[in-house]
Amino acid sequence: MFTQNDNFLKLPGKYLFSEIARLVSEHKAAHPQEEVISLGIGDVTQPLSPTVIAALHKAVDEMAVPSTFRGYGPEQGYDFLALKIIDKLYRSRGIEIERSEIFISDGSKSDTGNFAEIIGPDNIIAVADPTFPVYVDTNVMAGRAGEYLGEGRWSRIVYLDCTPENGFVPSLPEQPVDVIYLCYPNNPTGTVLNKTQLKKWVDYAIEHQAIILYDAAYEAYIVEEDVPHSIYEIEGAKSVAIEFRSFSKLAGFTGTRCGFTVVPKALKDLNAIWNRRHTTKFNGTPYIIQRAAEAVLSDQGWVETQKLVAGYMANAKAIRTCLTDLGLDCYGGVNAPYIWTKTPQNMGSWDFFHYLLQNAHVVCTPGVGFGPC
Amino acid sequence: MFTQNDNFLKLPGKYLFSEIARLVSEHKAAHPQEEVISLGIGDVTQPLSPTVIAALHKAVDEMAVPSTFRGYGPEQGYDFLALKIIDKLYRSRGIEIERSEIFISDGSKSDTGNFAEIIGPDNIIAVADPTFPVYVDTNVMAGRAGEYLGEGRWSRIVYLDCTPENGFVPSLPEQPVDVIYLCYPNNPTGTVLNKTQLKKWVDYAIEHQAIILYDAAYEAYIVEEDVPHSIYEIEGAKSVAIEFRSFSKLAGFTGTRCGFTVVPKALKDLNAIWNRRHTTKFNGTPYIIQRAAEAVLSDQGWVETQKLVAGYMANAKAIRTCLTDLGLDCYGGVNAPYIWTKTPQNMGSWDFFHYLLQNAHVVCTPGVGFGPC
Repeated sequence: MFTQNDNFLKLPGKYLFSEIARLVSEHKAAHPQEEVISLGIGDVTQPLSPTVIAALHKAVDEMAVPSTFRGYGPEQGYDFLALKIIDKLYRSRGIEIERSEIFISDGSKSDTGNFAEIIGPDNIIAVADPTFPVYVDTNVMAGRAGEYLGEGRWSRIVYLDCTPENGFVPSLPEQPVDVIYLCYPNNPTGTVLNKTQLKKWVDYAIEHQAIILYDAAYEAYIVEEDVPHSIYEIEGAKSVAIEFRSFSKLAGFTGTRCGFTVVPKALKDLNAIWNRRHTTKFNGTPYIIQRAAEAVLSDQGWVETQKLVAGYMANAKAIRTCLTDLGLDCYGGVNAPYIWTKTPQNMGSWDFFHYLLQNAHVVCTPGVGFGPC
Repeated sequence: MFTQNDNFLKLPGKYLFSEIARLVSEHKAAHPQEEVISLGIGDVTQPLSPTVIAALHKAVDEMAVPSTFRGYGPEQGYDFLALKIIDKLYRSRGIEIERSEIFISDGSKSDTGNFAEIIGPDNIIAVADPTFPVYVDTNVMAGRAGEYLGEGRWSRIVYLDCTPENGFVPSLPEQPVDVIYLCYPNNPTGTVLNKTQLKKWVDYAIEHQAIILYDAAYEAYIVEEDVPHSIYEIEGAKSVAIEFRSFSKLAGFTGTRCGFTVVPKALKDLNAIWNRRHTTKFNGTPYIIQRAAEAVLSDQGWVETQKLVAGYMANAKAIRTCLTDLGLDCYGGVNAPYIWTKTPQNMGSWDFFHYLLQNAHVVCTPGVGFGPC
């Protein structure tokens, strides 16, 4: 008799952002004349830049002619994009990455989620709290989270508290952990680690033979000097860290879908295992999308992309200023597009979500969706 | 201390088609003047049809303007495509599928591979032999295949022999199995099941509370009357079968990437679990690609698509005729683009691969890559 993977049934509720999308869509259907402003899921609103659009049209034209048509590409992505990534995003910062260490994908959500498959079953996972829910949810699916204790807590997951008291900089865990998910600039708090703070984690991983899954999807928003753009700026990181990067927030690709993951060869088995997974369970990012991503990294594409990012940062600044003027405590918005706000009068975060949607027609993401803290 | 998922280390060799691509690429580098004809991986060579190209350009233009730009879409795909699929591919054959039963994806390889994650750990898996290697490999990754016995066999997988003696129609298993992977029209043999033959499997699954994972990626190549285009043409199939479909071979989307999976609500937990997986570990197929797939299903797109398919079938016929004239036994090529040939003089299939590449500059896929039979 067929049985399903019961780990999935342990998950309470639905995936956070799908649930928010559903609630917003219901609200819009009930109030068709209202203009709803979405500050919920970290989506982009500005169109793809002219250089990216031109690259897409050109690639589409190539797909119309037998001599330039492309069928299956390498699952790990085309060299034209991977080599550009190596040059523009790493070599320019003094980091050497090999071609075989880059895996181009359809985005960081897929990659960070899929990575839970290649971790051994008994590893202890540590996550910052609050954190992007995919890290925890996919470890629940893989049977590594233990039992659900309520209030967003799982018995086998170690939560690294990030609070106003510690400036949202988590302390090293008191018990041994094997895999550490770090996301900087942080989703959802918008906070960052400086080089000294990140080095502590790399040193911890080296000492404890742990690995760090470093989600740098918001790297493009870093403005301050001492904030690392890649974990590989930290000495020794190549022997312990995997880095996830995305074009979503860099260049407005949330609906266009392209990201990549760096799995250093120094993590020997993991590079080979990720390669095996990627070639067996994935069939490459569409050719035309890879050409679009390549255009982002061209000289002109890069100038246009910086303008997009500056626009979102101006929005973040406006929101933060407004919230601060209203007397609310808030964080982030300096090296990241996200603002993390304390709800007024200790209102529950789902209550605040509904209050804001009903009364101001503004969508936010309830903090409780990111963990108990 | 971090440990990896050792199931991955059990896998012998590399993913079949990546390995072939590597060998061919090495051969081309060593013999740059040779014209190599690839009959290896089932790739397409003809450009996207004019209607699809026009739809892509239009969608790209939408992404250039704020009012029509699309960010994150529904992970399950846009309604405009799902409803067209329901209408054009199912309702036209008398099958009713609900919107929530359709999950649009980046292709059938991802979906058939990812499905191994939502199956319980103790299920016994049955595969036709020979079979598309992703089914077995992804069950090895999920720890469900047991130990490797050599010669393509795993201790916990039940192999359903498909040989010239049984006309490549597998017999029902002699021991109980919980999950049955069927691929028709078949990759690699190019053979099909008629309605009576497929009904036996549906009846078996109903009787034994098993499920069928039905890979119908080559459905567009069916020409004979009595061959089902969807497993849901068989009575009772909705309570036991998941169906995987693809635009790759239908419309030349191997490098464009779009497919979908039907998970009936009658399979209650599975629909909800697949939805949870799809929304948590995937972020939707690119908007412009979904518009391209929609165009395939338009009236004009459909006419153009039929011409593409007819072209590949003409190639298959030419190859089959040539092989038959050479005195080789071969199968398939009638309701599928694939031809399955017995190597001359019992030559090993990798030996034949190398022989053909060196002497005729033609790439084939070695049969042993699909299983012991």
